[in-house]
Amino acid sequence: MRWNLSPDDLPTAWFNVAPHLPAPLQPPLHPGTREPVGPDDLAPLFPMALIAQEMATEPTIDIPGPVLDILRLWRPTPLVRATRLEEALGTPARIYYKDESVSPAGSHKPNTAVPQAYYNKAEGTTRLTTETGAGQWGSALAFASTVFDLECMVYMVRASFEQKPYRRVLMETWGAQVTASPVDDPGHPGSLGTAISDAVRDAAGRDDSHYSLGSVLNHVLLHQTVIGLEAKEQLRLAGEHLPDVVIGSCGGGSNLGGISLPFVPDEGVRLVAVEPASCPTLTAGSFDYDFGDTAGLTPLLPMYTLGHEFVPPPIHAGGLRYHGDSPIISSLVKEGRMEAVAYPQSKVFEAAIQFARSQGSVPAPETSHAIRAVIDEALAAKEEGADRVILFNYSGHGLLDLSAYDDFLHGRLTD
Amino acid sequence: MRWNLSPDDLPTAWFNVAPHLPAPLQPPLHPGTREPVGPDDLAPLFPMALIAQEMATEPTIDIPGPVLDILRLWRPTPLVRATRLEEALGTPARIYYKDESVSPAGSHKPNTAVPQAYYNKAEGTTRLTTETGAGQWGSALAFASTVFDLECMVYMVRASFEQKPYRRVLMETWGAQVTASPVDDPGHPGSLGTAISDAVRDAAGRDDSHYSLGSVLNHVLLHQTVIGLEAKEQLRLAGEHLPDVVIGSCGGGSNLGGISLPFVPDEGVRLVAVEPASCPTLTAGSFDYDFGDTAGLTPLLPMYTLGHEFVPPPIHAGGLRYHGDSPIISSLVKEGRMEAVAYPQSKVFEAAIQFARSQGSVPAPETSHAIRAVIDEALAAKEEGADRVILFNYSGHGLLDLSAYDDFLHGRLTD
Repeated sequence: MRWNLSPDDLPTAWFNVAPHLPAPLQPPLHPGTREPVGPDDLAPLFPMALIAQEMATEPTIDIPGPVLDILRLWRPTPLVRATRLEEALGTPARIYYKDESVSPAGSHKPNTAVPQAYYNKAEGTTRLTTETGAGQWGSALAFASTVFDLECMVYMVRASFEQKPYRRVLMETWGAQVTASPVDDPGHPGSLGTAISDAVRDAAGRDDSHYSLGSVLNHVLLHQTVIGLEAKEQLRLAGEHLPDVVIGSCGGGSNLGGISLPFVPDEGVRLVAVEPASCPTLTAGSFDYDFGDTAGLTPLLPMYTLGHEFVPPPIHAGGLRYHGDSPIISSLVKEGRMEAVAYPQSKVFEAAIQFARSQGSVPAPETSHAIRAVIDEALAAKEEGADRVILFNYSGHGLLDLSAYDDFLHGRLTD
Repeated sequence: MRWNLSPDDLPTAWFNVAPHLPAPLQPPLHPGTREPVGPDDLAPLFPMALIAQEMATEPTIDIPGPVLDILRLWRPTPLVRATRLEEALGTPARIYYKDESVSPAGSHKPNTAVPQAYYNKAEGTTRLTTETGAGQWGSALAFASTVFDLECMVYMVRASFEQKPYRRVLMETWGAQVTASPVDDPGHPGSLGTAISDAVRDAAGRDDSHYSLGSVLNHVLLHQTVIGLEAKEQLRLAGEHLPDVVIGSCGGGSNLGGISLPFVPDEGVRLVAVEPASCPTLTAGSFDYDFGDTAGLTPLLPMYTLGHEFVPPPIHAGGLRYHGDSPIISSLVKEGRMEAVAYPQSKVFEAAIQFARSQGSVPAPETSHAIRAVIDEALAAKEEGADRVILFNYSGHGLLDLSAYDDFLHGRLTD
């Protein structure tokens, strides 16, 4: 079963969680002075509209019309009840997911790429730079840039650039320029940290360019809240009140934030972050101020972190290989409003195969972390004989990650 | 703009074009006796329900409930108005497309894979064999087989098996077994014709197995008519009466038949088949009885054909590389009810890039043939200053065909 909303039912305002957080967010600090950063410190990298959203305290922020027009190319996304997975598990739980894989880039990432491109265009920027790991975020920004007629320069982690050419081609199909990072060391496999450094350095050095980040920051999570807002409305159409638990995979926190933040005020609703055991930021990191990148160019953010020099092992869920975490997600975990669990990737791919063979769709490795936790929640409900409504974010499909499935199916995948 | 129908609005009966054809179809002939084949001749390969549909004359055929349940995992598919493409072209034409790329396998192919698996299961078959070129059809049948708990054996054209591993992995993810064809000559690159021979030989030799074909046959086109039936209803919701022209790419004819057959009775509606200039079955072939496969194992079908020994050049639209064509499509073209045009692949990829950069979605190379014709129709309307409603079938996405885009973008693609 699926519940569609009409394009006319797209939310017209984003949900700002700031007024609902258990504790106010600590400010980001300047990397040099270690004083709180102000709007002027961020202006070389971001348009003022996004800087204002980064610090906004009002409960909702209107979505500009031209952004709505583009989001309506694929939004509202369907809410699906995974009845065949429920049957396969024999669970009394009712499992719903938001299908964000229907976007042009195949993930939730365009939800923020589009407004970021729009606000940059509106303030006169003609070129955007960004980093990408496996390419999910880079392809989303390439798509948004072509829509608003901006140049787009993507620094792609070299290991992915060389081993996973398909998303590079996707970015080029949308007209972006893609180069391997780090640019100054062709022998280095790269990491999200090095690619952020390259992209920030590029944007800071050119008047026509701004930098764009696909996760972590407050304005990014803000833009993703259309997911949770739509899901609330669709659950109502499905005859449900509120979910018992909302689950999302977590790397920087954008897809998890998108589906879960609108439920923060609903106190009875459990919120669960799922991360890889090999990059266990929330479950084994420490809460501290840390840089967002390897070179220490970005402001210091208050977050759970494994240290900005931490290099996670090359697991297949590239989008979850990040040493830090969104300050908003970190704060929710620190204050006890959100739980966090970690899984090794073999257990994650077992869940992915079970999902693909019951529901049909093949999930991204990142998304499959959420699915692992969903299956375990549903099995726990079966054990307890408990009615339970589970909502999760199907953040993206795995059609450009099939080499990972190949490795799993043929016994070449290790934890 | 998009028009969604609710899962409750899925058509509950297929549209049978047989009573509406300008001339009755000539019967298939037995490959040995050259006499018309009867149901018993086909029984080693197909279940009786599909054989009956192959020869059916009633105007509609009910869709079984368990088939509807699976189709509702992604159907009805959206009808989209391509307003951004219209703007890019500056055309007064209104361009609508049916988005069949939203299925689990990413194309229209599961529309027939699901009922074929269902009827085989219902009549006691436990294993299906089939052929696949680039893998679109094989992955659809792998998906349908896992849904109905059947074994699935796919013979994949060796050149694709070796060069395009992603769809092979997709089939394996859904539990299918995949082997390169021809099985008896590891040095041969294979073709759809050799793979059909392998799959038919396998099924004919085992009591537990039937064969399944993804295009060409009457029952396959019948199952695809849900596309056109939904489109008619959605055009009405969009405030349109009937389209002026319906366009689809054509290899064997299944996606074209799916969108166009329900419009055959609407006399004012032009129907257009688009094929590759390198495999010009309808535009340069002759209408004759010919085999469906290379080895001459299948019945002889009345169709436009380039000869069953014709080996098309290795263009990127693997799904359109077939020497023959559906008897229904062939008859419509022969009787003047349908037009046919052919394009070289460089013009096709130009259209694909223009579509991707305006509408966002990246089309399959097969689908891009239709898009080329749509753009030319829209430009002709602009030239004439004519209002025109164009409907086409967006038969699949190109996310597993990005190597073709890579070749095009870097000047390595030839006609």
